[in-house]
Amino acid sequence: MVNSAQERIREEIIIPPYEGRGALLKPGEELIIIDMEGKQVGDFVCFNRNDPKEFVSPVHMRASLSSIRLKPGDALYSNRRRPLMTFVEDTVGKHDFFFPACDYYRYKNDFGMEDHPNCHDNLNKALREFGLGNESVPDPINLFMNNVLDDQGDYEIHEPLSKPGDYVRLRALEEVVIACSTCSQDMAPVNGFKVTSLKMQIVEAN
Amino acid sequence: MVNSAQERIREEIIIPPYEGRGALLKPGEELIIIDMEGKQVGDFVCFNRNDPKEFVSPVHMRASLSSIRLKPGDALYSNRRRPLMTFVEDTVGKHDFFFPACDYYRYKNDFGMEDHPNCHDNLNKALREFGLGNESVPDPINLFMNNVLDDQGDYEIHEPLSKPGDYVRLRALEEVVIACSTCSQDMAPVNGFKVTSLKMQIVEAN
Repeated sequence: MVNSAQERIREEIIIPPYEGRGALLKPGEELIIIDMEGKQVGDFVCFNRNDPKEFVSPVHMRASLSSIRLKPGDALYSNRRRPLMTFVEDTVGKHDFFFPACDYYRYKNDFGMEDHPNCHDNLNKALREFGLGNESVPDPINLFMNNVLDDQGDYEIHEPLSKPGDYVRLRALEEVVIACSTCSQDMAPVNGFKVTSLKMQIVEAN
Repeated sequence: MVNSAQERIREEIIIPPYEGRGALLKPGEELIIIDMEGKQVGDFVCFNRNDPKEFVSPVHMRASLSSIRLKPGDALYSNRRRPLMTFVEDTVGKHDFFFPACDYYRYKNDFGMEDHPNCHDNLNKALREFGLGNESVPDPINLFMNNVLDDQGDYEIHEPLSKPGDYVRLRALEEVVIACSTCSQDMAPVNGFKVTSLKMQIVEAN
């Protein structure tokens, strides 16, 4: 069950296919991101609300965690090597934090498409509503993304392992602005060749 | 042997311990980076000289190469998913491109040191001489760095496999500004607990 009897959801946000949404979290509040139909990657970014030059940074996370896998208990470290959130619960067990957001150049260079929706722009638009539209979009954590690495260090992108209703839960350690995009890649296995909705719930601090 | 009888070295640059150095390369020119004493990581960045908002980007390389290992023949892709250089020769076979540059925050937060030399600042200083000091320092390619990954996705940083005289060779595909720092971490196996010099050679285009 996603929610315990005790916890209070103060906001619920649907992220439609091919879009991004943001939210503001206070310290102690939790964010639940639910894969409603399954197999849908969510590109996730997080800024320190009080100093948006500080943001969750996958490259620094890989250093601080000595790992390229994400697991409950891990902190989401910033570009200043401080934890801004904690990854507290996960019903899937497979996520990515070494792959970039899909962007204009991906669809233009690799598919010859000028106007394909993409996570970079979805995130940028969502962040704009929180006054962060002029910041660079950081590298994302790609929730539910299933990169299968071989022992040589090469990998293939497989369909996500997430089933309908699977979720992750993160706790804010500081006041943060987060944004999440339904990964807009519909021509590859990354989202099972189909882009669907995600749901975010914000749980009040105890 | 590093250099063939035919090739002409137009410039040779020593990167002293705890420092960075930059260079400008024209298309077709090659850059050889030599680990003079062995076990020395070089943090390497590369900008499009004609538009420094474009730079070699490890996160985009990992996507374009479907890999987290670097091997001869690989292109060094930019944040616009275009190749700026090619990785043409390698006598070591083990490098990193998922780890961040060491920086002020690394030594401050993890070692309590305010003034330790670090690759981020070394690179920034080297880039300043090429008019790029106001650009963010991109994530580096960590030449000779030896991260040993287990099958869970966790890793340990081991001493580099490079012996004295080992080298890599890169070819510029566009006009680029590159910079390389002798990784300044002297309290961990990453450089064999000792920071030593690297040498760069720039080879004229045929």
